[in-house]
Amino acid sequence: MVYELYYWPTIQGRGEFVRLALEEAGAAYRDVARGKGGMKPTEAAIDPHEEVRAAFAPPVLRAGELLIGQTANILLYLGRKHGLAPRAEAGWLWAHQLQLTIADIVNEAHDTHHPVSTNLYYEEQKTEAKKRAADFTAERIPKFLGYFEHILQNNGGRHMVGKRLSYVDLSIFQLIEGLRYAFPKAMAKLEPGWPGLMVLHGMVAVRPNIAAYLASKRRIPFNEDGIFRRYPELE
Amino acid sequence: MVYELYYWPTIQGRGEFVRLALEEAGAAYRDVARGKGGMKPTEAAIDPHEEVRAAFAPPVLRAGELLIGQTANILLYLGRKHGLAPRAEAGWLWAHQLQLTIADIVNEAHDTHHPVSTNLYYEEQKTEAKKRAADFTAERIPKFLGYFEHILQNNGGRHMVGKRLSYVDLSIFQLIEGLRYAFPKAMAKLEPGWPGLMVLHGMVAVRPNIAAYLASKRRIPFNEDGIFRRYPELE
Repeated sequence: MVYELYYWPTIQGRGEFVRLALEEAGAAYRDVARGKGGMKPTEAAIDPHEEVRAAFAPPVLRAGELLIGQTANILLYLGRKHGLAPRAEAGWLWAHQLQLTIADIVNEAHDTHHPVSTNLYYEEQKTEAKKRAADFTAERIPKFLGYFEHILQNNGGRHMVGKRLSYVDLSIFQLIEGLRYAFPKAMAKLEPGWPGLMVLHGMVAVRPNIAAYLASKRRIPFNEDGIFRRYPELE
Repeated sequence: MVYELYYWPTIQGRGEFVRLALEEAGAAYRDVARGKGGMKPTEAAIDPHEEVRAAFAPPVLRAGELLIGQTANILLYLGRKHGLAPRAEAGWLWAHQLQLTIADIVNEAHDTHHPVSTNLYYEEQKTEAKKRAADFTAERIPKFLGYFEHILQNNGGRHMVGKRLSYVDLSIFQLIEGLRYAFPKAMAKLEPGWPGLMVLHGMVAVRPNIAAYLASKRRIPFNEDGIFRRYPELE
């Protein structure tokens, strides 16, 4: 079976957490909107009028008969299928819980540049964005990443969950990538406080499948249309 | 086994989605922070230094050996255990996907009164809150609830998922309760557009266990410390 990923073709965004899991698993997948026909198939896939179980928003993964939405839910599915999460219920629930917490900080990172409305441009909410970003870098990043560092150390320091690589490790890698891109100064100052996460980040980056992916054209560079955006005035 | 729910004792908040599932299931549970000793046990349960698998934030459910965090994750667990979600993987993944979408609009409802920072009082971000709330009522409520109405109709109009009551139905009930409390004028205008959701709301409200719960002291009234807050200036 070849998976089909429906996501915006020009950004990493939330879809990147799914792409990383697919790449690490060596799973065959088609990044639908990046093929011929551009964005149209994605729009169709997320339109409730087209599918009984349509998602509210991308990313969406088609896995045979299944159409799965919500990033963390897709990872819950892939993790169990591809050995990227513990097999026992207690283990995969815990992995999923951590992924949902990563989703929370990703949402907050998004709102640093869109604190008022997703229907307005960043430029129309810059004043509010400055306030929200200041709080995010001063309060929220330290709180979330301090928590993840502690959880990692509680688990022995090598992996976020269990004794093997899981999609949570991949997602922590992507979170750090994104935060470094968006808030380089804040992160440079804060990173020494999370030695375990820094090692984990490096460990993920050199995994053969991930390293090959990052060096390929399939990895879309960060840009100012995605979730993690570099606006110097927000630092 | 008696479940232990760790959540703030004075608000419905995110914990209410869990309380409704426990009440409907007729499950034995202790709302820990509302017992003797007040909030202290909750604080302990969410402190990473106390538990290896500590949650980032409440609600947290203790189920025997398990300690489960993230509202939607708790419902995923309870739904499978208590027949409040389909048994087949495709079904419970779909139910969970809808719950995560409900979590998204709940997050956005929270941010109408805290668009800049959770570390500041509402009064310190009132100007920004007015802008965000205007967007939320004009754009986001119609988009989310229109989606849920469509999904409900796609499924035959009686239940959100499958042919039986699920926790998603309970959560839709609570979402409508909250939105009605916080934005009564906007909801009065919009509700005729979602006839299916209105019937579903009424159907949940009169279920014996839910009706008994709503009439009991266990149901905390809405107030301006929770997620859904009534501030006339935000309408």
